[in-house]
Amino acid sequence: MGDPGFPYGVRVTVSLPFDQAVERTTALLQEEGFGVLTRIDVQRTLREKLGADFRRYVILGACNPALAHRAFQSDLDVGLLLPCNVTVYETEGGATVGFLDPAALMAVAGGEGLRAVAAEAGARLARVRARLVG
Amino acid sequence: MGDPGFPYGVRVTVSLPFDQAVERTTALLQEEGFGVLTRIDVQRTLREKLGADFRRYVILGACNPALAHRAFQSDLDVGLLLPCNVTVYETEGGATVGFLDPAALMAVAGGEGLRAVAAEAGARLARVRARLVG
Repeated sequence: MGDPGFPYGVRVTVSLPFDQAVERTTALLQEEGFGVLTRIDVQRTLREKLGADFRRYVILGACNPALAHRAFQSDLDVGLLLPCNVTVYETEGGATVGFLDPAALMAVAGGEGLRAVAAEAGARLARVRARLVG
Repeated sequence: MGDPGFPYGVRVTVSLPFDQAVERTTALLQEEGFGVLTRIDVQRTLREKLGADFRRYVILGACNPALAHRAFQSDLDVGLLLPCNVTVYETEGGATVGFLDPAALMAVAGGEGLRAVAAEAGARLARVRARLVG
């Protein structure tokens, strides 16, 4: 969406501390009908598995059940592309929240039914993003 | 990989019952260095959230920490495309196991460093697949 170096999503910067950015993002996703089904603590995983240092970073697996159901009806294998990831990581003075662009992802899959679902998911995530920085 | 209707992954059919297929897939992933970080029970989620009937279906979020670490060093936002999904669902007489093609996914992201990581992840997943049906 405009950024040639980042063709698969959109980032916004918020001036909240990391934990609050995660909390606020999760709450706004909920208001657009996305539950957070999975949550990967990247910093902890890399430390535990590799002993590596890394910034605070979570991968939230967001799922709107009604949209997911429509996607499954159009393509049984679409589970490979779900849930829709939202990332939050610590940056100087705040946090960066990244949103996967469902349309970019579903373009990999093709199929008219999936494109419609991706467009709706994308519109909802755009509202979350707007409220995060608004 | 060859199937025009399914450009983002590869499916194999196994004659194991669903639960055993999940167990065997998880064990083989482990042997190739992929831990299962997340596990979404699609059937239960759709039933609980929508009251919808659906076949038995899980989405496993597989992660090879060393490959993930390399991917993060090449692109901080790559968390949007991780973990690498493997799906297992019930079919007539057995189960179907689907593997996301990391190369197809990373093609969305671009970048030479990511392509190399995706190629290695893909080679490892191909071995898992071969052993599942072997």
